[in-house]
Amino acid sequence: MADWNILNQRTRLNGLRISLKNYCESWRMNVELHNIREFKVVAEECVAYIGKYMTSTQYKVDSERTVEECTVYLSTSCGFKNDGKDAWIFDIDDTLLSTVPFYKKNGYGGEKLNLTTFEEWLSQGKATALDYSLKLFNDIKSRGLKIFLISSRREHLRSATIDNLVNVEYHGWTRLILRSPEDEWKSVQEYKAEARKQLISEGYRIWGILGDQYSSIQGLPTVKRTFKLPNPLYYVF
Amino acid sequence: MADWNILNQRTRLNGLRISLKNYCESWRMNVELHNIREFKVVAEECVAYIGKYMTSTQYKVDSERTVEECTVYLSTSCGFKNDGKDAWIFDIDDTLLSTVPFYKKNGYGGEKLNLTTFEEWLSQGKATALDYSLKLFNDIKSRGLKIFLISSRREHLRSATIDNLVNVEYHGWTRLILRSPEDEWKSVQEYKAEARKQLISEGYRIWGILGDQYSSIQGLPTVKRTFKLPNPLYYVF
Repeated sequence: MADWNILNQRTRLNGLRISLKNYCESWRMNVELHNIREFKVVAEECVAYIGKYMTSTQYKVDSERTVEECTVYLSTSCGFKNDGKDAWIFDIDDTLLSTVPFYKKNGYGGEKLNLTTFEEWLSQGKATALDYSLKLFNDIKSRGLKIFLISSRREHLRSATIDNLVNVEYHGWTRLILRSPEDEWKSVQEYKAEARKQLISEGYRIWGILGDQYSSIQGLPTVKRTFKLPNPLYYVF
Repeated sequence: MADWNILNQRTRLNGLRISLKNYCESWRMNVELHNIREFKVVAEECVAYIGKYMTSTQYKVDSERTVEECTVYLSTSCGFKNDGKDAWIFDIDDTLLSTVPFYKKNGYGGEKLNLTTFEEWLSQGKATALDYSLKLFNDIKSRGLKIFLISSRREHLRSATIDNLVNVEYHGWTRLILRSPEDEWKSVQEYKAEARKQLISEGYRIWGILGDQYSSIQGLPTVKRTFKLPNPLYYVF
């Protein structure tokens, strides 16, 4: 609680009275603005606030709006060649599938991620679909774009991941790219950027990326457009 | 109101009841996530909401947190050489000075910007300082970094801009870069990127940028870190 107490005192001095909600909302906003980076846990005093947000109508409305902007972009884009080389990239966790049920049982981002426990949960293949993302996925498929899934999940989770995706109605992607042991030496941003580079070298034109982490959309090569879903629960380096 | 009515109906169908506040908050969040781009006016139904936000404690707390993250970054950065080539870039409008009083009188972003009226207001030099930014400005100066102001204001506003800055206690910057007539053929992002390129070619190491627009921090060349203040009032291309 130290951090919060310090902030509260200082802002009192500046004549600003702020609530814990003000404080945590500014924390969340600055995570989304990418001013706060590389956090390992959600600030202790904001765990309850973030848990509430991640299960709120607002989180759904925020995410739905992100996905709507993808649809607007696709509907107004000219230049699809329909030669099998128009492409779109998705993240998996908290983009296509929700890991919120896991975090709900594990302290809502307030505890450092235990990779073993998390991968056990992933291997059960019980993550639910984010329904707005499923709709977008199908919309993109129907427009004739190839879909690439680039995830920071590790290679040993391949069959569990496929089962999970198919069970909640995702099907028809072109390639599922997971992290091989040698990719683990790289940052996730480097790994994902290299995957994009590979796709571009194969002649794919990447029209957009939908992800929930800046590591999915930043770095070179860039693509035509990127879209970021809100996610203040965790930060992937 | 059409847009809002359509959204409301659709979300009812999905079983989600959402309020105008939910809707406008998701609009604002998606502006800050840079999913909504190139808007010319604030969505009509959200003008009151955005006006309220821009004059709220939350806006101050959000901005103050952004500036705090700059301070944390500077305090933990190693490698300042103190050879006169360590540098920092600031935007002016809604980064160092507030234009909210202008927008308050001109429909809070709900009306398309009238450049003549806006420049008349700027030429009066009455924009107030954002106090947290002034503190950061002085902190950066005291660390021995050179400060560059790169603004999309036009060159003919130079003396009014200097007077305004000095009157609210900003002084000691190294260069004020404004848009010359030939820069007006470029997008603001291109113009600002070229200004960075020039500084780098002069040997400056740019440690960071604080701005309120994505056009101030995106494009090549990149710098070590960028920080974006919230600003859902307008979008600079």
